[in-house]
Amino acid sequence: MPSYKLASREYCPRDTVIEIPGLLEPVFIGAGYCTIIAGPCAVENQADYLEIAKILKSIGIHILRAGLFKPRTSPYSFKGLGTEGLKIVEEARRTTGIAVLTEVMDVRDIEDLYPHIDIFQIGSRNMQNFTLLEELGKTNKPILLKRGLAATIEEWLLAAEYLLDRGNHKIILCERGIRTFEPYARNTVDIGAVPLIKHLSHLPILVDPSHATGRAEMVGPVAKAAVAAGADGILVEVHQHPEAALSDGRQSLTPEQFRELYEQINKLAELEQKILQ
Amino acid sequence: MPSYKLASREYCPRDTVIEIPGLLEPVFIGAGYCTIIAGPCAVENQADYLEIAKILKSIGIHILRAGLFKPRTSPYSFKGLGTEGLKIVEEARRTTGIAVLTEVMDVRDIEDLYPHIDIFQIGSRNMQNFTLLEELGKTNKPILLKRGLAATIEEWLLAAEYLLDRGNHKIILCERGIRTFEPYARNTVDIGAVPLIKHLSHLPILVDPSHATGRAEMVGPVAKAAVAAGADGILVEVHQHPEAALSDGRQSLTPEQFRELYEQINKLAELEQKILQ
Amino acid sequence: MPSYKLASREYCPRDTVIEIPGLLEPVFIGAGYCTIIAGPCAVENQADYLEIAKILKSIGIHILRAGLFKPRTSPYSFKGLGTEGLKIVEEARRTTGIAVLTEVMDVRDIEDLYPHIDIFQIGSRNMQNFTLLEELGKTNKPILLKRGLAATIEEWLLAAEYLLDRGNHKIILCERGIRTFEPYARNTVDIGAVPLIKHLSHLPILVDPSHATGRAEMVGPVAKAAVAAGADGILVEVHQHPEAALSDGRQSLTPEQFRELYEQINKLAELEQKILQ
Amino acid sequence: MPSYKLASREYCPRDTVIEIPGLLEPVFIGAGYCTIIAGPCAVENQADYLEIAKILKSIGIHILRAGLFKPRTSPYSFKGLGTEGLKIVEEARRTTGIAVLTEVMDVRDIEDLYPHIDIFQIGSRNMQNFTLLEELGKTNKPILLKRGLAATIEEWLLAAEYLLDRGNHKIILCERGIRTFEPYARNTVDIGAVPLIKHLSHLPILVDPSHATGRAEMVGPVAKAAVAAGADGILVEVHQHPEAALSDGRQSLTPEQFRELYEQINKLAELEQKILQ
Repeated sequence: MPSYKLASREYCPRDTVIEIPGLLEPVFIGAGYCTIIAGPCAVENQADYLEIAKILKSIGIHILRAGLFKPRTSPYSFKGLGTEGLKIVEEARRTTGIAVLTEVMDVRDIEDLYPHIDIFQIGSRNMQNFTLLEELGKTNKPILLKRGLAATIEEWLLAAEYLLDRGNHKIILCERGIRTFEPYARNTVDIGAVPLIKHLSHLPILVDPSHATGRAEMVGPVAKAAVAAGADGILVEVHQHPEAALSDGRQSLTPEQFRELYEQINKLAELEQKILQ
Repeated sequence: MPSYKLASREYCPRDTVIEIPGLLEPVFIGAGYCTIIAGPCAVENQADYLEIAKILKSIGIHILRAGLFKPRTSPYSFKGLGTEGLKIVEEARRTTGIAVLTEVMDVRDIEDLYPHIDIFQIGSRNMQNFTLLEELGKTNKPILLKRGLAATIEEWLLAAEYLLDRGNHKIILCERGIRTFEPYARNTVDIGAVPLIKHLSHLPILVDPSHATGRAEMVGPVAKAAVAAGADGILVEVHQHPEAALSDGRQSLTPEQFRELYEQINKLAELEQKILQ
Repeated sequence: MPSYKLASREYCPRDTVIEIPGLLEPVFIGAGYCTIIAGPCAVENQADYLEIAKILKSIGIHILRAGLFKPRTSPYSFKGLGTEGLKIVEEARRTTGIAVLTEVMDVRDIEDLYPHIDIFQIGSRNMQNFTLLEELGKTNKPILLKRGLAATIEEWLLAAEYLLDRGNHKIILCERGIRTFEPYARNTVDIGAVPLIKHLSHLPILVDPSHATGRAEMVGPVAKAAVAAGADGILVEVHQHPEAALSDGRQSLTPEQFRELYEQINKLAELEQKILQ
Repeated sequence: MPSYKLASREYCPRDTVIEIPGLLEPVFIGAGYCTIIAGPCAVENQADYLEIAKILKSIGIHILRAGLFKPRTSPYSFKGLGTEGLKIVEEARRTTGIAVLTEVMDVRDIEDLYPHIDIFQIGSRNMQNFTLLEELGKTNKPILLKRGLAATIEEWLLAAEYLLDRGNHKIILCERGIRTFEPYARNTVDIGAVPLIKHLSHLPILVDPSHATGRAEMVGPVAKAAVAAGADGILVEVHQHPEAALSDGRQSLTPEQFRELYEQINKLAELEQKILQ
């Protein structure tokens, strides 16, 4: 018997569908939908962020990545604009009506971020930051919970259980690659996690091919694989000038590359009889 | 600079397409085709094998799995019929005109098998059995080279290099899952290996979702993911009575399940503008 | 060139030796010393904790494990007494004069814990909890930094770099096993990390065979291996009644087993010309 | 219940001790002994091989590495002298009286090698080459069975079971590192495998720190760790001129470094009350 309850398929046989209220119209994540969340790795400055927000909105995107706090392996790397960037995000949100997703790392930031964002993200390094899980579990915002680099499916569902147990039922899982011996790509996408999660749980699952592979040329094929395997959508990095990005440029698609991928995902979603969001 | 040469994209910029002569008409594996190889894990007896051969032929399959030698972790498990099974395989081949794929483990069996089979398979445990690689490299039969459980992409391409270097250029790579910490499925399919191989090499690549996952319920989603990611086809286990199979029944599809998957793969192949084989 | 600076051997060619002030006399961790930290996984109640503290003190132990906050994979497991347990720890510390080590998971707990403990522990799940690293880096207490389950040596040293960069130079590394495919033990102790850390860094390194293996019968051999490989000491779980422990009883040594191991470690330390602490 | 029988501790509660007849006097591997097997990675030429044989003999070594067939990841690397090198090995054996260990990769070589060598080695890549296991199992020579790079303890014992089941009971296990995500050393020595094998099986276990780490500076500490953890000995690469070795020079000790390690191992063996061999 699995050690998670609220996250299990037995507890809730029907697929959970999460509604992101949004500013203009609701966006959905879960059964029947294929939802694409896109945007740059980090908010770098207002001009660029507003520009990419408008470009992505015009392509059809309803949820924008809004990286303010970047967990960085080295203390000497660019760590994001922090709460200073919130007004840039708010401006993009207000002018385009797009919903925003942002990672939170510190429980003391939740309150400041709360009114300005639509989905909280718990990053892979914090999947078992139980303090953070417990505090976010008390909010009523949707939460995207990335799988830890070395987390088993069961540990991941137990991390979701922390959130569900605190009362937040709007949990979206996100596979972002696991750590293996293979050195070529940054991590190894566990594509089998998609049908497994569908088998074991009622929660929606997205796949992030950008962080998982760390290589722009792999993003498209892995994104398509995710949707064909039954994922409820993808999370993709897009940047106007990947070569000049302050973080993770190597894995970002250009708007042109993304537009082409969007069309391909659309055809796959049709085949799966899902509504693209 | 990679240590492989003949296997590299630089050496041969155009995708390799391999022709399996077959008894009736040639079958192709490589660019422009999506090839499905199916069949039971092992040849168990003549009646069942002929029956499944006819069923698969009627679905549209041109290449049949013909497991005679089964590498088994325990010395006490069923190890296949060995060369005794060859006449069963020959009978299936003759009556249906279908081509057959069989694993060879012992260099001393190559000669006996040679006239009766269409594709040799090198299993994952033998990917670095250099004696076997060198002997099979001297033949002119197509070879399906499975990735080792813990082999990097580079080691895999170097194993292919052994075959190419001996003069056999009809090499088909097959991703079958790598060993990771995740205990739920048998292994973790490295879906990113598909675009990586396409980027680094000219050789065709198939994916085996049956051995990789060890669970029938994961086979369909992973097979579809493979084709969407750009694989040149899949290798699937099908058994009339999975629950009674002498090996690996847990991961076999029934003919009905397989027929449904075949239709879904067909639609994905159309989307990718590939001819189903 | 490695991305860490302050943690590197080049920056500080001499081994760092850390002094734990203690209540009675200082305890040392680093070159020339072999330091054993022992105690139960968690503080469970005052009577048992005081008893084990006295037993361990009598064996020769100077630093006691004082688990108050237990990171638990499941939200339904015993999570420790929290700050409620502080007075028990303080009592043990006061009556025995022993120094205590406690894990901190939440930045909001640092202040409360600060006056009552001698070494902060950052657990493996929090090795890249950068918020926690930055706050603890501002304190002047010694910090034991456990290696993350899937952290490379470089990422581990970069986590130490966060602490050093904030001004805290009393950093003790602790290898506690990494996640691999091997299912028998809980994790795989990377014994090679001991000479590697000695080669790359000036920081002391301990090994925790209890959490790493999860099996009492492996603790002794792995502890001895650690000391023979050059580790600066070990961290071991000891419980009067392992079978009744609220957490991790399966891996705890009894006081009798521990006393025997202590003697063996003492002989190894003599061979390495180190002072047992 | 484990799937191996003959290899289990239950089947044979007493530790197996293997006698290597040798030319002058028998050498033992197993309980009560600490056996060091040393020598260059490969036999390169007669002069150098005889010289190192004499040096190692003078230090106290009774079993010499005699690499004739080198499994190499790339088809373009030096693969050993093959059977051509046998007379060099025979000369070293005859003039020094030392016993020799050689890897066999091809079942067709067993007969040629048989009269000239004392221990057959099955390399890690061939741990599940069942054809080779079955043929070597029929001989009565001692066999050193290296653990596969991604083999679980159970799979390793099942490979030993193949040998035992064919009638050869002189099986020596050898841990040589497993493949993990850590990139610094070549592989990760699973030091916990030593007590685990002692717990589960009656077979002796050695550790090969040279191939496992691929770095000379790690060999000594890991070798000492192995003996402290209870291993029955070690397998070490020694070369007069590591920088000029045709294979694996990076991990070879010089005779001077080895002599120093030999002394340290001797002291550890004394502590464990074992006779150095």
